[in-house]
Amino acid sequence: MVKGYPEHISLDEANEIIRNTFKGRVSEHCVNIKDALGCVLSRDIKAERNVPHCAASAGDGYAVRSSSTIGAASATPVKLEKGLFQWVNTGSDLPTWADSVLMVEDSSTDEDAETLTVFRSLPPSMNLRPLGEDVMAGQIIAREGDVVSPALVSLFLCAGIESVPVVRRPKALFIPTGDEIISQAKWLSDARQKSGTAAESNSLFIEASFKNWGYEIDIAPILPDDPNILLDKIMRGAENYDLVLIGAGSAKGRRDHTLEVFERAGRVLFRWLRMKPGRPAMAAEVSSKPVICLPGFPMSTAVVLWSIVYPLLRLLSSKRTVDERSQIKDALGCKYTLDTKLLLQHSSQAGMEEWLRVQVADVGGTIYSWPLTSGASVLLALADADGMAMLPPSSLECEKGSDIEVMMTKDVDLSRRAMFQGSDDPAVQLLTTYIRRRGGDFVSRAVGSMGGLGECHVAAAHLLDESDGGYNDSFIERFSSGKKWERILVFYRIQGIIVKSGNPKHILKFADLCREDVVFTNRQPGAGTRVLFDYYLKKIGRCPADVNGYAQQCTTHMEAANRVSSGLADAALGIKSAADALGLDFIPLTEEPYELVVPEEYMTHPGIAALLDSLKDEEWRDGVERMGGYRWPN
Amino acid sequence: MVKGYPEHISLDEANEIIRNTFKGRVSEHCVNIKDALGCVLSRDIKAERNVPHCAASAGDGYAVRSSSTIGAASATPVKLEKGLFQWVNTGSDLPTWADSVLMVEDSSTDEDAETLTVFRSLPPSMNLRPLGEDVMAGQIIAREGDVVSPALVSLFLCAGIESVPVVRRPKALFIPTGDEIISQAKWLSDARQKSGTAAESNSLFIEASFKNWGYEIDIAPILPDDPNILLDKIMRGAENYDLVLIGAGSAKGRRDHTLEVFERAGRVLFRWLRMKPGRPAMAAEVSSKPVICLPGFPMSTAVVLWSIVYPLLRLLSSKRTVDERSQIKDALGCKYTLDTKLLLQHSSQAGMEEWLRVQVADVGGTIYSWPLTSGASVLLALADADGMAMLPPSSLECEKGSDIEVMMTKDVDLSRRAMFQGSDDPAVQLLTTYIRRRGGDFVSRAVGSMGGLGECHVAAAHLLDESDGGYNDSFIERFSSGKKWERILVFYRIQGIIVKSGNPKHILKFADLCREDVVFTNRQPGAGTRVLFDYYLKKIGRCPADVNGYAQQCTTHMEAANRVSSGLADAALGIKSAADALGLDFIPLTEEPYELVVPEEYMTHPGIAALLDSLKDEEWRDGVERMGGYRWPN
Repeated sequence: MVKGYPEHISLDEANEIIRNTFKGRVSEHCVNIKDALGCVLSRDIKAERNVPHCAASAGDGYAVRSSSTIGAASATPVKLEKGLFQWVNTGSDLPTWADSVLMVEDSSTDEDAETLTVFRSLPPSMNLRPLGEDVMAGQIIAREGDVVSPALVSLFLCAGIESVPVVRRPKALFIPTGDEIISQAKWLSDARQKSGTAAESNSLFIEASFKNWGYEIDIAPILPDDPNILLDKIMRGAENYDLVLIGAGSAKGRRDHTLEVFERAGRVLFRWLRMKPGRPAMAAEVSSKPVICLPGFPMSTAVVLWSIVYPLLRLLSSKRTVDERSQIKDALGCKYTLDTKLLLQHSSQAGMEEWLRVQVADVGGTIYSWPLTSGASVLLALADADGMAMLPPSSLECEKGSDIEVMMTKDVDLSRRAMFQGSDDPAVQLLTTYIRRRGGDFVSRAVGSMGGLGECHVAAAHLLDESDGGYNDSFIERFSSGKKWERILVFYRIQGIIVKSGNPKHILKFADLCREDVVFTNRQPGAGTRVLFDYYLKKIGRCPADVNGYAQQCTTHMEAANRVSSGLADAALGIKSAADALGLDFIPLTEEPYELVVPEEYMTHPGIAALLDSLKDEEWRDGVERMGGYRWPN
Repeated sequence: MVKGYPEHISLDEANEIIRNTFKGRVSEHCVNIKDALGCVLSRDIKAERNVPHCAASAGDGYAVRSSSTIGAASATPVKLEKGLFQWVNTGSDLPTWADSVLMVEDSSTDEDAETLTVFRSLPPSMNLRPLGEDVMAGQIIAREGDVVSPALVSLFLCAGIESVPVVRRPKALFIPTGDEIISQAKWLSDARQKSGTAAESNSLFIEASFKNWGYEIDIAPILPDDPNILLDKIMRGAENYDLVLIGAGSAKGRRDHTLEVFERAGRVLFRWLRMKPGRPAMAAEVSSKPVICLPGFPMSTAVVLWSIVYPLLRLLSSKRTVDERSQIKDALGCKYTLDTKLLLQHSSQAGMEEWLRVQVADVGGTIYSWPLTSGASVLLALADADGMAMLPPSSLECEKGSDIEVMMTKDVDLSRRAMFQGSDDPAVQLLTTYIRRRGGDFVSRAVGSMGGLGECHVAAAHLLDESDGGYNDSFIERFSSGKKWERILVFYRIQGIIVKSGNPKHILKFADLCREDVVFTNRQPGAGTRVLFDYYLKKIGRCPADVNGYAQQCTTHMEAANRVSSGLADAALGIKSAADALGLDFIPLTEEPYELVVPEEYMTHPGIAALLDSLKDEEWRDGVERMGGYRWPN
């Protein structure tokens, strides 16, 4: 069978199909001017009254007959008797006998206000706001297609207009689906959910986005994976709403009936986009209404919402569009763009538009950006990103230093932001808030001790020198290349073996990690903790092949501890605070110095100054002490 | 007496005083995550659960034991019996015996799914979303000072968080005051309001602005000009709200008690700004709360709202501010800025920050901007503006061609916008909508026939040549300077004398306009209608001094007709449609050709193409015919 719809199309093609299908499908209604804010006018609007409706004084002063002021000047003032002048405020009307307003500064009165001394000769209509100065009755004051602004609402009232014809704002329905999806109330009510389930969280993202955009959306109850129920709900949704969104699998999963349902319900417009994430998006026309299938992973839902649904909402509300990409910025809440250099090499998939969630920092006058994870399932990366970048389908290997335009979604003060790279530590993660309270800002990349020194304002290291058992010296020396560094010893921390609560495998010493019945979880190459592990391994004369799970990599202490906690591993090497945080047992091995390394030139950087000052913050130090496993230097 | 507060200060000084006075005056409360959108977190937020809470499949495929796939490849597939594989969807959990997921494309099954053929050897944990991949229990997922985004709301749910501590959103009260102010309901109920009154329209602008910004405001009933009542209301407002705005005179008017009331209620922070408009702004601290006095003219209210109130709202909600001026852009709803050249010379007042409401057009590759009226009372100019420009206090004479940065508040497609200059005509004013329906855009400056030709895409003229009684030829020739112009005869229109309904002054012929008992209203120099008037005047051997009101200038036909309608004049020269629109009488004098003049190079400009096509639009032509006084060319 030949498919009646295109597959694997570009975002632009998808939007063009949608535009061509649903253009002009709008209806108008009359709304009170207060409710018209943000709506598109469906007709020209004419003033029903003159504004102002009578000539009025344009300032505070005296209404006079201009002819009575002839010849008046500072040197030759003219005196007017009572009855020939009258006080008027700005906006007041003039008595019928007066034709001009004398400003208060061009006059003086005696105590009883019996006479007025005039220091200036006035022509007729002086300081007078003429009738209709603002608008005149019958004048077109707003046009079909104009978006109603605060100024227009106010002007409508002044011009005697109570309601205006506007394009009806589209109303959307979101239908979450999936047997594995747990409702929000149920999810929150019990922390111990079954495996294989997930919270119905996308509707929160969608609702919040609609709220930010000023559109209404209803959220339907979660539907099970049953094509007949889904079909019925879509058909009814298309009858009652202007736009239906389905949160459903549209990949090749066995329970993904959406395509079949779309085919039964109406006409499929397209299936799958050449976009990453967001690839499994799908659209249909059902009872003349658009139905969009949003892929289930949060980042996939987000990008389809921004790049397909938001433009569609604008189309359905008759909002003019100057440029397709500017709509995406609007949708994101992007306030400004930054031209940045890519901090690390990035491989993009050929032929796919790719969305990157990036963070930014200005290091030494170069604004760098780096992508956070590319996983569509990772919501934190979306929350943490400073902005978004879109790589066009033509991008393949983006070298370090490539130009990347970032659509900024957060207000970042680059001049006050310190960028941290290096060894991960939960105590350091606590610092951000204290740095911010001191007017600085802080962004960190956990890249391990060896990855730290480079394009950053501050690095952290706890690197053991295997040759002499010392820490950091030889490493920093190797990297210094003539540069001057300041070293700040923050604390000593205890490294050891993290094991399950109760230590069921009776792991008592390092050599136990080589036992056959013990599954270990390792850290990434370059991490100080891995260097330490390798050092101990060598010391007892064993090799990586002797360790079950040596190849399994975590990038933070907490991640490693978590693998132990959840039973994916029996043991990990890590710091005591990570074990404590998850209620795990801990066998101490050694204490290591944790040092910050700051290039001398950045010691006065506002972000670094705030960071160094934060290290003395009592509240932070209390927090670190409560975490356990740290010791302050003397 | 020495005043305890600064006067006539700059905007930056005013904002600094406010910042120093009210910084840190925030309180926190816990809100449901759904209500936290847009709020600022008052503490760090830690995940209460792992996300995902169990390891899950990262794709659709088969859960297998990795060890059972050893050696599998396309050339050497491995067959697995039933029980050794199990279908899993994306997000599903794995059976306990499985440790990896085989993607569907790396496998095949027989009809009955009794055996699975594996084409790829898998390591452990392949295609598996590890527990805590997104966030780990105990991890900080958002920080004090972060604004809650749609992604955060969603992430909070996933991480098991139901409510979060946020900075309380400030709530404002607006108090309109003034004996002359008419409530909205009363204003709309009767089109014949007393002179000297005005609608309470500012509250609509303020409410709409707050709505766009996402802040709450209550509107108090209108207060009379009574200092005691005002004092009481301010004191109670400061008790119950975080911010009180007063719409009140703060100039030198006799009824302007606001300063006195501020002094009695609390501490005046500043009075008057070096800003135009917005000069009479004032601020006080009352019961530790900010109270801002908004000057009464709409544009003055608007600029103080944008530049003082909006930053204050951000301050009271603990929103970080990178750059003062970017807040103003936010407040305006500015989406982008344009670098433009000033189309006409503009004189700015020394030492004053000046706000300009501007329109923009791209003519021949230069983006021009021109200010609309500078009158603070003119609301239409605010509604009509494409954006705002701020001239710094140092600006004095801005020559034509000066660089002006425009903060754009509307989406303008410069490539499709035709700019019209020249003779005003109500029928032409109707065209915009038809041009827009054809994908073009249209902006016009009524500068009179003689002012038209120049920096524009299209001009219009009906200029009488006094020497030969012909129209336009000699004028266009004079301006052409080698350029080629296309001339489009749009219609003939009847010019004549506009008089009051019933013609009470019995004005029957042109010479009657020179009668002593007749007050005339004229058009501006350069207007074709004025040229016509002068031609007739000369023809009957009279001079301007013989005409009562010759010096009185209107810039459009409607404005002239309106002066007649409202009794400010007995007669005006103008077109029949203007008289008809206001139900006035009309004495025809002549019929003149109204021509559009387009430089040849712009004939294919999308805006001009749409304009020329619109001239054939039946709906527009019907509208013009209904206006009366026009005749189409044969």
